[in-house]
Amino acid sequence: MSKFKLALIQLKAGLDKSDNVKRAIQFIKSAVVDHQASVVALPECFNSPYGTQYFAKYAETIPGPTTDALSAAAKEHKIYLVGGSIPETSDGKLYNTSTVFGPDGTMISSFRKVHLFDIDIKGQMTFKESDSLSPGSTFCMFDTEHCKIGVAICYDIRFAEMAMCYARAGCKVLIYPGAFNMTTGPKHWKLLQQARALDNQLYVAAVSPARDEKASYVAYGHSAIINPWADVLAEADETEQIVSAEIDLEFLDKVRNQIPISKQKRDDLYKIESLAKTIPANQ
Amino acid sequence: MSKFKLALIQLKAGLDKSDNVKRAIQFIKSAVVDHQASVVALPECFNSPYGTQYFAKYAETIPGPTTDALSAAAKEHKIYLVGGSIPETSDGKLYNTSTVFGPDGTMISSFRKVHLFDIDIKGQMTFKESDSLSPGSTFCMFDTEHCKIGVAICYDIRFAEMAMCYARAGCKVLIYPGAFNMTTGPKHWKLLQQARALDNQLYVAAVSPARDEKASYVAYGHSAIINPWADVLAEADETEQIVSAEIDLEFLDKVRNQIPISKQKRDDLYKIESLAKTIPANQ
Repeated sequence: MSKFKLALIQLKAGLDKSDNVKRAIQFIKSAVVDHQASVVALPECFNSPYGTQYFAKYAETIPGPTTDALSAAAKEHKIYLVGGSIPETSDGKLYNTSTVFGPDGTMISSFRKVHLFDIDIKGQMTFKESDSLSPGSTFCMFDTEHCKIGVAICYDIRFAEMAMCYARAGCKVLIYPGAFNMTTGPKHWKLLQQARALDNQLYVAAVSPARDEKASYVAYGHSAIINPWADVLAEADETEQIVSAEIDLEFLDKVRNQIPISKQKRDDLYKIESLAKTIPANQ
Repeated sequence: MSKFKLALIQLKAGLDKSDNVKRAIQFIKSAVVDHQASVVALPECFNSPYGTQYFAKYAETIPGPTTDALSAAAKEHKIYLVGGSIPETSDGKLYNTSTVFGPDGTMISSFRKVHLFDIDIKGQMTFKESDSLSPGSTFCMFDTEHCKIGVAICYDIRFAEMAMCYARAGCKVLIYPGAFNMTTGPKHWKLLQQARALDNQLYVAAVSPARDEKASYVAYGHSAIINPWADVLAEADETEQIVSAEIDLEFLDKVRNQIPISKQKRDDLYKIESLAKTIPANQ
């Protein structure tokens, strides 16, 4: 169980929600059949275009039709499925929410994006997710027969403290559904993944929507899987596709023995502490 | 005072200690005269070859002849001088120690490497600094008229927690004298600098010895200066040289306003705390 295949579905989501979900389910089948994946991840906001003008219109409760479809797909293919994210409505608020399903179709974890994407690079990229969304306040880590896996969404990857908390809790893979853009994507998307992977000596996967030049928010694409040595194992271009790679936990252990930074931390000089509850609560 | 020039001296240190120091002093003059630098940094272990077999032989007390020469150079040129590092002897122990001098020649800070370089990449790079050196237990941050600057040494750069503590204490430039090797250098040297710069939105400079293919430990070179957007402002090749760049604190502020992660940290979900004393103590 020290090796398994992880596949990322770089879906091109359009205006038709039911078609987005239907196509996601088709790609999940392909990830299993063609890539032999036992863990599959969808991108951020996969059943909706990404944009503050869309979130309310496309939002669903959880459980709801989209997550029911994910549950059925996880069960049918007996996989762990990280359901990218969808706009979630709950108690009159909207969230950017990821759901995780186990091989029996049970929803084993969920995650509401905790760092909302509010940036203002004048003339290039201004976005204020907090105009329509509320932030979550819990972390998402789940056990598999392979290892513990952590999930966070897009802008969360800029906050190294969060990844450190996940790593210290034992996660060996971090999966970030995310939709970087044409300003920050080329500069920071891969670098942030490599930074999280190298600093924590674990695998990092980031799964973007495919690029749609006609969309109001143009995603960068370039979904990727990085190993604990910071090598890029797989990287998509901007088009709709599946990328996959083998996660090798023996290699992870080897890197951690070669450069044993986790044992060499100076916990007498600095302290990092998670204050967040996790879903599920036993992590 | 929002802009100043930082120069890194990629010195080729040989077996002759007095020649190493003499040449370092000549390069400092060139950094000031030819590069208009007001902050100058030397590489790790600049008065000695790097290697456990050399540390005891080349070690000095602080103050001692090498640091006296640094003090005089800082005073002569009225600069802040980060004196790379030297093997220091104190109370029967050896340390890998950086000293910092102000424009009046006063030693305003010092730093003993806190994370010793013990790695074991079989067949490629095995090194155990702790066979001969003892680790320090204090942090190094000093005020200038431009901004606060932090210093750590080489392997310390792999420990993101430390850079976070420096950033949270207000450092806007981190300087790492360091001597990565031909295994870890090509893979991780620049990536780690960019990770520290991007995650903390500050300038990072890393200053290596020049490569000496005949040395027992072959340094990678490639001293570099990275801006808070993770752009590489200056990068040396492997040869002996000075690289310099303008540190622009208005640009730093701009980046921090564009992508305001320091204000967006979720201090309710994670906590990072420095437990270390600093030199000087008021930082």
